[in-house]
Amino acid sequence: MQAVALRRGAYAPAVIEIDRPDPGPGEVLVRTLRVGVDGTDHEVIAGEHGGFPEGADYLVLGHEAVGVVEDPNDTGLEVGDVVVPTVRRPPASGPTEQFERGQPHMAPPEETLERGIDGAHGFMAEYFTSRAADLVRLPAALAPLGFLVEPISISEKALALARGSRSAFDWRPESALVLGNGSLGLLTLAMLGDVDRRYCLGRRDRPDPTIEIIERLGATYVDSRETPILEIPAVHEAADLVYEATGYARHAFESIEALAPNGVAALVGVPEPWRFEVDGGRLHRKLVMNNLAVVGSVNSGREHFAAAIETLEGLPSWFTDALVTGVYPLSEYERAFATSETTIKTALQFDTQ
Amino acid sequence: MQAVALRRGAYAPAVIEIDRPDPGPGEVLVRTLRVGVDGTDHEVIAGEHGGFPEGADYLVLGHEAVGVVEDPNDTGLEVGDVVVPTVRRPPASGPTEQFERGQPHMAPPEETLERGIDGAHGFMAEYFTSRAADLVRLPAALAPLGFLVEPISISEKALALARGSRSAFDWRPESALVLGNGSLGLLTLAMLGDVDRRYCLGRRDRPDPTIEIIERLGATYVDSRETPILEIPAVHEAADLVYEATGYARHAFESIEALAPNGVAALVGVPEPWRFEVDGGRLHRKLVMNNLAVVGSVNSGREHFAAAIETLEGLPSWFTDALVTGVYPLSEYERAFATSETTIKTALQFDTQ
Repeated sequence: MQAVALRRGAYAPAVIEIDRPDPGPGEVLVRTLRVGVDGTDHEVIAGEHGGFPEGADYLVLGHEAVGVVEDPNDTGLEVGDVVVPTVRRPPASGPTEQFERGQPHMAPPEETLERGIDGAHGFMAEYFTSRAADLVRLPAALAPLGFLVEPISISEKALALARGSRSAFDWRPESALVLGNGSLGLLTLAMLGDVDRRYCLGRRDRPDPTIEIIERLGATYVDSRETPILEIPAVHEAADLVYEATGYARHAFESIEALAPNGVAALVGVPEPWRFEVDGGRLHRKLVMNNLAVVGSVNSGREHFAAAIETLEGLPSWFTDALVTGVYPLSEYERAFATSETTIKTALQFDTQ
Repeated sequence: MQAVALRRGAYAPAVIEIDRPDPGPGEVLVRTLRVGVDGTDHEVIAGEHGGFPEGADYLVLGHEAVGVVEDPNDTGLEVGDVVVPTVRRPPASGPTEQFERGQPHMAPPEETLERGIDGAHGFMAEYFTSRAADLVRLPAALAPLGFLVEPISISEKALALARGSRSAFDWRPESALVLGNGSLGLLTLAMLGDVDRRYCLGRRDRPDPTIEIIERLGATYVDSRETPILEIPAVHEAADLVYEATGYARHAFESIEALAPNGVAALVGVPEPWRFEVDGGRLHRKLVMNNLAVVGSVNSGREHFAAAIETLEGLPSWFTDALVTGVYPLSEYERAFATSETTIKTALQFDTQ
């Protein structure tokens, strides 16, 4: 069967031919429908994140998959069930503590593999196998957009941690600032529909499809070239929630300056090491005097996939139509990885026969 | 009556003579028993924190009080009730949002007064008045140590926020690192008795009374001159909880490096502005990849005073005996503000007649 993989030493994906996998005990054979592409894939391709499976000279890419059960293999699932796989798997040495406690999304990075990212093959292949316990069923009608479940689940978890951090008092967020107008930023902006006033930071000129989405969602576009984060409280307002989705390291610190009293900054982007100066005294003092919180979040668990399916069902079709700018067959796989001013979210389609 | 106050322009407290207050409607007259002294008092005296009441040329000091109801003034309290006052009061313009929502401890600093600290007279006087709603009753047997309720309540709130920040998953902290071996650090170390392994950072030579307390509590003393925070994970272990009680701004950032995966750093110290370099990329990445949290916390509410009373009841007498190194009558008030290598926690005693 065909798969999209990154070969060792390469900095671009390629289509390769590999054997169709056989499901082992407890495993299901899934026929892949679509697999989304995101920033993490680009980081993996650039060699900035993740790694190859032990002993392998290639990594099958893709962690945002939706597929159809082809062989349930006595697991309780049924032929034709539409499923989305979770991403983390135990290392070869066996399940580590957080896996045994049912929360692999809380495992330290060195105690987990991540399919399509770190040490385990992903889902960009015509078929994949997975333990039934690592598959989440979704309504068949959602199958075409099922590749959005994983990215939405990332925000479900980050927002759950952020809300949890404010659970020891009566918190009523009225304003949210999303840093980044990529697909994850836009999805999160849409998920925050219950927040009165939403802002989304980007640095694009109009006309721009992401700005159109931001404004159609009822949110305010903030051009970081005109209004840097530090000026947002004066120009607009301080935010009860800041969601940092760019991975730009200065943002983690500037977020604290953009927070309203009792606010929380949720970080999901993953920067490289970078030394710079901060007013650490001022930041520390502000964290304390204003009862602020900062939470980092990576990956997501079954509960977040379940929440993401509900969220996906509630997203308006104009939004997902505008968000998904391209779904490409395997023969045009390079287009799914290409970026441009008009690209927001792309996916690879495998069921084109 | 006599009071201990800071005069405008002065950098040391003085005993002054002021009128005994009359309780207004809903207010109670309290005869003061004892008032503790802490780092915030020293910051106020040094002019680094807080401010004078509007129009006043002095500030009565003291925010850690215990007293006896002298005139309940039809409030429902009774003569002889032992009470501890909370610290925050609405500004002259009237109750702000968080006061109306019953959580003044979550008010932004500019929307609250703090008795003995910022804009309102404190409790270091022979009598004080307070709304009954701002008094918390405690068992009479605890009266001699009642001045510890407020500082304990500070940690109750900070720890509630820290635990809340980890409430979205199954968190099982096994190790805690307290930064600072002052009275708040030691109280917090004692409060964390349900954590398997505790460490307390200081920079004192043995023999030292704080080190003796740390070790008698079953915790490990870490001398920051030998083992800086960044080396604690290698020399001892990374901590599930870091409690920063020194107000040293670099600690807020170094705490992140000392955290175990899924850990939380609680900050309660209040530093001044100070610019320095950090590896912001590395810190941001670690916050995300390890699902970390940082929470700031200031002040405390009635619920935390109630929790603090329970905590105080459970503290062993050897601990409070060792912690409270001096209780001084008004005639020796300067001794209560003096610091030395053997001073841990002091209080002023008002009922010496």
